[in-house]
Amino acid sequence: MKRISILGSTGSIGTQTIDVIASRPGEFRVVALAAGRNVARLEEQALALRPELLVVPDEDQAKALASRLPRQVRVAFGRDGLVEAARHPEAELVVCGLVGAVGIEPAFAAVDAGKDVALANKEALVSAGQFIVARAVATGALILPVDSEHNALHQCLRGESVSEIRALWLTASGGPFRGWDHDAISRATPDQALRHPTWVMGSKVTIDSATLMNKGLEVIEARWLFGVGPDRIRVVVHPESVVHSLVEFVDGSFKAQLGMTDMRHPIQYALTYPQRLPSTLTSFDLVAAGPLRFEAPDPENFPCLALAVESLRRGGAAPAVANAANEVAVEAFLAHRAGFLDIPATIRGALDLHAGAAAATLDDILAADRLARKTAADLLVSGVKS
Amino acid sequence: MKRISILGSTGSIGTQTIDVIASRPGEFRVVALAAGRNVARLEEQALALRPELLVVPDEDQAKALASRLPRQVRVAFGRDGLVEAARHPEAELVVCGLVGAVGIEPAFAAVDAGKDVALANKEALVSAGQFIVARAVATGALILPVDSEHNALHQCLRGESVSEIRALWLTASGGPFRGWDHDAISRATPDQALRHPTWVMGSKVTIDSATLMNKGLEVIEARWLFGVGPDRIRVVVHPESVVHSLVEFVDGSFKAQLGMTDMRHPIQYALTYPQRLPSTLTSFDLVAAGPLRFEAPDPENFPCLALAVESLRRGGAAPAVANAANEVAVEAFLAHRAGFLDIPATIRGALDLHAGAAAATLDDILAADRLARKTAADLLVSGVKS
Repeated sequence: MKRISILGSTGSIGTQTIDVIASRPGEFRVVALAAGRNVARLEEQALALRPELLVVPDEDQAKALASRLPRQVRVAFGRDGLVEAARHPEAELVVCGLVGAVGIEPAFAAVDAGKDVALANKEALVSAGQFIVARAVATGALILPVDSEHNALHQCLRGESVSEIRALWLTASGGPFRGWDHDAISRATPDQALRHPTWVMGSKVTIDSATLMNKGLEVIEARWLFGVGPDRIRVVVHPESVVHSLVEFVDGSFKAQLGMTDMRHPIQYALTYPQRLPSTLTSFDLVAAGPLRFEAPDPENFPCLALAVESLRRGGAAPAVANAANEVAVEAFLAHRAGFLDIPATIRGALDLHAGAAAATLDDILAADRLARKTAADLLVSGVKS
Repeated sequence: MKRISILGSTGSIGTQTIDVIASRPGEFRVVALAAGRNVARLEEQALALRPELLVVPDEDQAKALASRLPRQVRVAFGRDGLVEAARHPEAELVVCGLVGAVGIEPAFAAVDAGKDVALANKEALVSAGQFIVARAVATGALILPVDSEHNALHQCLRGESVSEIRALWLTASGGPFRGWDHDAISRATPDQALRHPTWVMGSKVTIDSATLMNKGLEVIEARWLFGVGPDRIRVVVHPESVVHSLVEFVDGSFKAQLGMTDMRHPIQYALTYPQRLPSTLTSFDLVAAGPLRFEAPDPENFPCLALAVESLRRGGAAPAVANAANEVAVEAFLAHRAGFLDIPATIRGALDLHAGAAAATLDDILAADRLARKTAADLLVSGVKS
C-alpha cells in the first residue's frame, strides 16, 4: 500500500485523486489531507479515509474540526500545517493539488523531505522551479507531473534521453475564445471564459486556459521538469485536446500521448508510477475522437503566452512576478472587478516594475511574489491600461 | 563505428539504408552487401562502400563480378551466400531488407549468430516468427523493426512494460482503393494499385498495402515482435499516414509515434539504436500535416486483412501458407496474369488446403511455404474463384 498525503484534497485535483484511490481498494492509504475553505467536505473525506493528519486554513477551524473527530486525528492549520502534511513521516507520495502560490512552500518541503511528489500545482515550478528541482535532485525525490501536458511529456520520455530532445510540443485547446476577434475578447465575461471547450477544471486554471497564460505557465513548468530551454519548448493549438502533448527528438521522430480529457488518468499515472494499473474509466475511442487539428497559436489576441515566455527568458524572479500578477488579475476578473484584457496588462505592468527582483533564495521568490501581488492590485485599482 | 551487413542492398530498404549511412560519415562501416538481380548497382555500391563480402543470386554472376573487383573482396552467391552475409563475423547489425520468403533463412541465421537485426523483411517474422524470436532471446540478439508501424510501436514501448499493454494499434493508410466500391476494386489494375497515397515503397509491399494484406502481415509480425496475442492487436485506417502506430496501455493512456513518411527515419532509428542521432532530413510540420483522420477498416472490400489474422489464430504453418500464397498471387497480379481480387481468393484457397501443415521446425515452415506457392500457382492457372 502506497501511503499518500493530499494537499488541496477538496479541490478539483484532490477530489479526483480520492476518486482514483477509491477505484483501487487496497492500493493506497491516505495519511494526511489538507484543504482550504471547504472544511465540511474535508470532514467527510476524513471520515471515509481516516488519515492521521488534517490541515485547515486557520486555528479556529482546526479547533472546531478537532472537537468533532476522534482524538488520535491531529488537526493542524495554515502554512505550517501544509508543510507538516508535505513532510508527513508516513507519506511516500505527496499530491500537490493546491491552487496558486500557496503551493510553493509545501512542494519544496515535500521534495526536501525526499517524498515523491505528484505535482498539479504549477505555480510551484513556475515561481520556484530552480529551487524545487535542485532539491529533488539532491534528495532523490521524483517529481511526477499531473498536468495533462507534462504528464504526457513524462510518458513520452520514458526510456528516452533528455539530451536527444529536439523540442517539447505543448498542446493547447485554444480555450473558449479561439478564433474570436479582439473586440469580442475585450468584452469577454467570466461566464464565457469559464466555458472550457474540452476540460473540466478549477476556475483559476480555466481562466488561464482562456487567456493562454496557462500554456505560458506550462512552458515554464516544462523548462524545470525536463531541463529544456525556452527555445526548444513550443506550443501548438489542438482544439480536440486529444493529443495531450508531444516530444520531437533529434532524429526527427515525434512521440505523442493521447487519450480522454479526464484528469483521473494523469492522476492515476502519477499515483502508481512506475507501474501502470488497469483503469476503470471509459476507454478512449480514436475513431470517434474525430479529425485531429493542429494550428499555430494567435499571439495578437492571446498575449499572456508570450508574456510568460518572456518572464522565463528574463529568469530569476520574473516568472514568480508574472504568475503572482496573473493570480491577482484573474481573481479580479472572476469578481467582475477587471476586464479580460486587464489580465495581460496587469502582468505586463508587474513585469516591467519587478522583473529584476532578487532571486537568490526561495525567500526572495516568495518576497517577489508578495510584492508583485501588491503591485498588481494597485495597478488594477488605478486602472491598468489594457 | 558500427559494422553493418546489408541484405537486399539494391532494393528500396537497402538503398535508403546506404543513404542514411552516407549522411553520417564515420558512424558506420559496411562489411557485407547482398543483392538480387541488380548486380550493376551492387557493383557501384561495392566501389563506394568497400565491403569485404558481396552476395549475388548465382555462381556465374559471382564469378563475373569477382573478376572486376579487387582480389580481397569475396563474392558469394545464392542462399548460402545470403546466410554467410547474415553471419559475417565482423557484422554487429544485419539489415534484413530482402523482399519475400527468401529473407527467412538469413534472418534466422543472423539472430542465431547473435547479431542485432534491423528487420524490414516482414515475411521472416510472418512465416517463422516463433523460431526467430526464440532464437534471438536465446542469443541475446535484438530485433529492431524497420517497418514504420512496428518501429513506431518499438519507440512507444521504450521504458514501458509489455505486460501493461492493453492493445497495439497499427495504422493503415487504407491504400489507393480506400472508399472504392467492390466493382471498381474487382477491376483494379497494377498501375492503379501501385499508386500508394502516402508512402514510396517497393512494388510488392505497395500491392500488399492496396489489398490490406500488408496490414494483416503486420499484425502477425507484431504478435512475434511484442509478444501480444491477436485479440490485442488492432488496425485503424489513418489516411494521412502521419501517426505510424499507437500503443494503448492498461491505464487507458495511448502513446503514438508520428512523423514524415520517409523510411530513412525508421532505418536510422534501427541503425543507431539505442541512441537517437540528429537527422538531416526535412523536419515534420504538425500544423502543415493537416487534420488527422482515423477510421475503422472495411472488411468487406479488403478481405486479406481478416485472412492474415485468421492464419495467425490458426497458428503453426498457416501464416507461412497465407504469406506464400499472397506472394505468388501478387506476382501474378503485377504480371497481369491475375485480377486484384484473385489475391484474397488465392490466399483463401491455399489456407483451406494447407493450414494444418506441420510446423515443428524451421524446415517444416520452409516446406509449407514451397507447397503453398505451388498450390497458389495451380489455383491461379486453373482459375481461382474470386
